[in-house]
Amino acid sequence: MNKSCDTEILSVGTELLLGHVTNTDARDLSELLSKIGVNVRYHTVVGDNPQRLAECVRIARQRADVIITTGGLGPTCDDLTKQILAESFGLKLVENAEERRGLYDSIHPERGFTGNNFSQALLPEGCTVFHNDWGTAPGCAFEKDGKIVVMMPGPPNECLPMFRRYAIPYLKKLSEEQIVSHSVRIFGIGESGVDDMFADEMNAMTNPTMAPYAKECDCLLQITAKAGSEAEAESMMAPVIARVKERLGEYVYGMDIECIEEAVLPLLKERGMTFAAAESCTGGDIARRITEIPGASAVFAGGCVTYTNEIKAKLLGIDPAMIEENGAVSFLVAKEMAERVRILTGADIGVGVTGLAGPDGDGVHEVGTVFVSMAVEGETFVRELHLGTKRTRSFIRRMAGNHVYDMMRRYLTGLKV
Amino acid sequence: MNKSCDTEILSVGTELLLGHVTNTDARDLSELLSKIGVNVRYHTVVGDNPQRLAECVRIARQRADVIITTGGLGPTCDDLTKQILAESFGLKLVENAEERRGLYDSIHPERGFTGNNFSQALLPEGCTVFHNDWGTAPGCAFEKDGKIVVMMPGPPNECLPMFRRYAIPYLKKLSEEQIVSHSVRIFGIGESGVDDMFADEMNAMTNPTMAPYAKECDCLLQITAKAGSEAEAESMMAPVIARVKERLGEYVYGMDIECIEEAVLPLLKERGMTFAAAESCTGGDIARRITEIPGASAVFAGGCVTYTNEIKAKLLGIDPAMIEENGAVSFLVAKEMAERVRILTGADIGVGVTGLAGPDGDGVHEVGTVFVSMAVEGETFVRELHLGTKRTRSFIRRMAGNHVYDMMRRYLTGLKV
Repeated sequence: MNKSCDTEILSVGTELLLGHVTNTDARDLSELLSKIGVNVRYHTVVGDNPQRLAECVRIARQRADVIITTGGLGPTCDDLTKQILAESFGLKLVENAEERRGLYDSIHPERGFTGNNFSQALLPEGCTVFHNDWGTAPGCAFEKDGKIVVMMPGPPNECLPMFRRYAIPYLKKLSEEQIVSHSVRIFGIGESGVDDMFADEMNAMTNPTMAPYAKECDCLLQITAKAGSEAEAESMMAPVIARVKERLGEYVYGMDIECIEEAVLPLLKERGMTFAAAESCTGGDIARRITEIPGASAVFAGGCVTYTNEIKAKLLGIDPAMIEENGAVSFLVAKEMAERVRILTGADIGVGVTGLAGPDGDGVHEVGTVFVSMAVEGETFVRELHLGTKRTRSFIRRMAGNHVYDMMRRYLTGLKV
Repeated sequence: MNKSCDTEILSVGTELLLGHVTNTDARDLSELLSKIGVNVRYHTVVGDNPQRLAECVRIARQRADVIITTGGLGPTCDDLTKQILAESFGLKLVENAEERRGLYDSIHPERGFTGNNFSQALLPEGCTVFHNDWGTAPGCAFEKDGKIVVMMPGPPNECLPMFRRYAIPYLKKLSEEQIVSHSVRIFGIGESGVDDMFADEMNAMTNPTMAPYAKECDCLLQITAKAGSEAEAESMMAPVIARVKERLGEYVYGMDIECIEEAVLPLLKERGMTFAAAESCTGGDIARRITEIPGASAVFAGGCVTYTNEIKAKLLGIDPAMIEENGAVSFLVAKEMAERVRILTGADIGVGVTGLAGPDGDGVHEVGTVFVSMAVEGETFVRELHLGTKRTRSFIRRMAGNHVYDMMRRYLTGLKV
């Protein structure tokens, strides 16, 4: 595979053009491809229309070396991707005996199945078949006329694991050099701050390379190396990563993970510790985030969503007069929420959040004012946050949650909270 | 504007091709456009590269009547969209005095600003300017050579409200006919069931039209009419909508809303009622969903996330021996969760969820087994769900939540729970 091969992701499906579905496949595949050094130059979406799809394939063949399709591999008559791609490259579709058997086994006979179901076993002659362990339609890949074509099913819960298991190794094997990438995840300093710290170094680097990226509520530094082997690429990156981690220090919450709760879970697990949450403005989102990760029950005891003052009193036993005096959005209420949920549940750590996620204010604080707290044996910490008056409700809730998890991360790793 | 005008959404930004950002703009704009009857035929994503962008514009001009760009309007030197589009259509960029003044006012002088900032006030000569009330870069639109071009900023929290406020009316004004669309939101019957019910009718319809669409955990029927005026389109749809609602009956949870909790909130509010939630496998997601909507505090008291058996006992006071005997995932535990959270909080309705969201089972039930419950004055309802052994954790959690909200909706509207 050419080192600088230009790649186009061509997604097929009228539902994408109607806005009924978001094209997460293009995003997810692009992220995986960028990590192995493949340059994605275009995303195209076209409907289930043979003429328009054929024309998009013609354009993709002109401007890209690798064409990756998603969608249109199913059994219905709108599913045209294989036919059109095979035609464009002058290949016949032939039935794959193993896939046909698999389809026969996987389709419940009582549902009844027609000749159409077996069309999923028709694949371009000579292609590499990617079996679909997560659904029925197989994917495939072939090389022809100096181009590489990879076809994947559309449903994200099939496309993404299949692409990881089959397409990424297929594409890596075609390359003479190995490209390896790591992301250093950062919280507490913005993308522009990271950029300022490393700008000179980044500009001077060619291999490995380094680039900062902003996510919704945190940021990351992506480090990528190319070499003859993965081990060599890793050893080229090791000193860079070590230096980055040293300079960023306490702002680094993890490597190659997606969110800060993924860093906190193992820290708690290693120490055999649990936490509980008392949430007001985050409304259950702190609990939801940790429980989205399988195995959360080892570290997350539970918690209370105390959305009204009355419930703060009833569930957590906070004195209503104290709330009245200080206001629900206050240092003291946040402090008590963390302390009381800790005692109530018997967890090692209690965390609390109270604030204004907007759009309406409370006449005292501006929107975006949030108090987050963490109670541990003998000590309680509170952070006062001002997350911005023009931010969305969901941003403020997510950012408040990040601060809660950051407090735990810092406490558990011996950093100043 | 031609009735069948083909539209391309051209999104500009290397971050999209690296997979750092999902192209939600293309989805959101497509949905809004489909509701006014505009046929989106292509989505294209290209990076911040002048040659490749110019080539994409050339292709879009050949195959589309309307080109809508997103992104690349900012002040940095990668922001090329206006320059390339203006060049392609032979238009000059001229400074808009009002926008320049606005930029001057909106940029904090202490941050310092360079000539680059004012490049945002440069717009194609003769265009219609869309002022950006949510950020700094204005959008614009023009007609030239039989094509319509609309340019929008990339950040979704600017693009989407601006598109709604300015671009949709602009595009509607160009059309001689008005297109109006409504979605009937459905839960409890799948897209294929809806399709079966209405297939003959849908095939026979030309104006209004009707089509079913699947969402992750529910589905909808989109009804669209074209007429000389909005009022006329509405009156053409009224009998169709009435008939659809009558036939689908209790499965219809709302019109023109996005999720079932949006239907439940006003039902509770009208009745002056509140609810509280005791959540196990949903881990706070039921609370999070209602509190994502501004004004939730009027109807949502709060709740408990009781992720472990110990916490079910501690927070809700459920007898540990009873949990031991029945298992945490059981009819009786679900029933007690709803009843106890109702009493504990003093809410009118208590809901509960306990189940297996996977990926691991408990050796007794299969993954996807969930008990959802609702306690009201004098009565408790429990549904046993089997949501599928191959579903993702997040699907099972969301679907369980939908059932909880559906039970409340049914109870509040006098339907059989």
